[in-house]
Amino acid sequence: MAELVRLHPERFPAFAASLPMSAPDAAWEELRRAVDDLGARAVQIFTNVSGKPLDLPEFEPLFELMAGYDLPIFLHPARGARFPDYPTEDKSKYEIWWTFGWPYETSVAMARIVFAGLFDRYPGLKILTHHLGAMIPFFEGRVGPGWDQLGTRTSDEDLTKVLGRLKKRPLEYFRMFYGDTAVFGSRPATECGLSFFGVDRVLFASDAPFDPERGPMYIRETLRVLDELDLPEAGRRKIYFENAEKLLGLGR
Amino acid sequence: MAELVRLHPERFPAFAASLPMSAPDAAWEELRRAVDDLGARAVQIFTNVSGKPLDLPEFEPLFELMAGYDLPIFLHPARGARFPDYPTEDKSKYEIWWTFGWPYETSVAMARIVFAGLFDRYPGLKILTHHLGAMIPFFEGRVGPGWDQLGTRTSDEDLTKVLGRLKKRPLEYFRMFYGDTAVFGSRPATECGLSFFGVDRVLFASDAPFDPERGPMYIRETLRVLDELDLPEAGRRKIYFENAEKLLGLGR
Repeated sequence: MAELVRLHPERFPAFAASLPMSAPDAAWEELRRAVDDLGARAVQIFTNVSGKPLDLPEFEPLFELMAGYDLPIFLHPARGARFPDYPTEDKSKYEIWWTFGWPYETSVAMARIVFAGLFDRYPGLKILTHHLGAMIPFFEGRVGPGWDQLGTRTSDEDLTKVLGRLKKRPLEYFRMFYGDTAVFGSRPATECGLSFFGVDRVLFASDAPFDPERGPMYIRETLRVLDELDLPEAGRRKIYFENAEKLLGLGR
Repeated sequence: MAELVRLHPERFPAFAASLPMSAPDAAWEELRRAVDDLGARAVQIFTNVSGKPLDLPEFEPLFELMAGYDLPIFLHPARGARFPDYPTEDKSKYEIWWTFGWPYETSVAMARIVFAGLFDRYPGLKILTHHLGAMIPFFEGRVGPGWDQLGTRTSDEDLTKVLGRLKKRPLEYFRMFYGDTAVFGSRPATECGLSFFGVDRVLFASDAPFDPERGPMYIRETLRVLDELDLPEAGRRKIYFENAEKLLGLGR
């Protein structure tokens, strides 16, 4: 990818590195090599590492290093059919693991990052969540007043102290994430996500080529939705490219 | 509840029955008693029965009986902390099982009902999903073009034949559900949900008293959102009471 960017800068202005997260020490070495030597402007990680959550201490250097570089982490969903939807079953049926499991796990990963206090420890942290913040925008009521009551639904441990450890309401941390527009051409979802994150934290993406036409459909429909939205032209420019330029530090 | 309705019909126009779903035969007997003898106008069930999905053959009489009565099933989320979010853990942290797990499981239950063909077998089936259709409205792109490609993500079994068994696109079945407005005062979520289901399939609900003020907040905020929406007065009347009157057969 570094070579592609070097050979075709007019088409590929930057690339995101992939890290061997299951071997954390090697991952940080590769991260430094990718950014310092090869010019990576982001890393893409998945919502779990061999089934483990991202808020384990062994993964904390990722957040510290990326905040230090002032470069974004792209958070991509991951889950397979072997994660069942009911405790009485051993696999997820009908690809539910994809349709709902991916946004579920993205949302869970976001929550774990928030409640682990990573945004408090690394205020410059920038995390781009694929698919427009997963479940957060539509469920802002659960994330907001719902989680303001964290602990009231739990009796076997005291979760109210989690809120005391954070500097802000949980909802305010969720607004610190970035989202991309890859919602498969849904205008109501795009509006809902934009309402939650605002035009400064939403970046264009399409999920091509994973549509029924094998490529053009999601690009075309996402462009159509964005062009039809009642949005100032300045906001549209941010979504289409200015936010990406800024987040990836392309002018630096 | 039957007695409350009998004593105070001006405040309680109808009630929903609760069924012992873990003992199916007894549940159908109780269902008939509740409707025929006591006048129940709905049943409320949960998204799993002791951890089991609702599309098992043992639960099919519920759908058949309710479609026969032309009365609705209220589908309420259920999940607890013991359902972990990662395979390497044994419980869900920070009440994620509530914030995201409840809508996730509602969405899964809806998908299982759709793919089991229950709407094809019982076309009159009416199912009201709490919290405005859970994940479906925001994720209509995944449910729509995403699930039109069912089978393309799976290699160990042929899931493409599932689509062949259904009479319509998966998305069209999801539009047959009803949703309520209990989204905790989120206007963007309300708009997104209304866009998906339309004014004929959305019913007023508030989730009172589970708000930070222990009662008034979600009622007040939900009313505010609905009153502020750019909606014809006829649509507002449907959401506030006419859809409920019709669904519960209050004029019958």
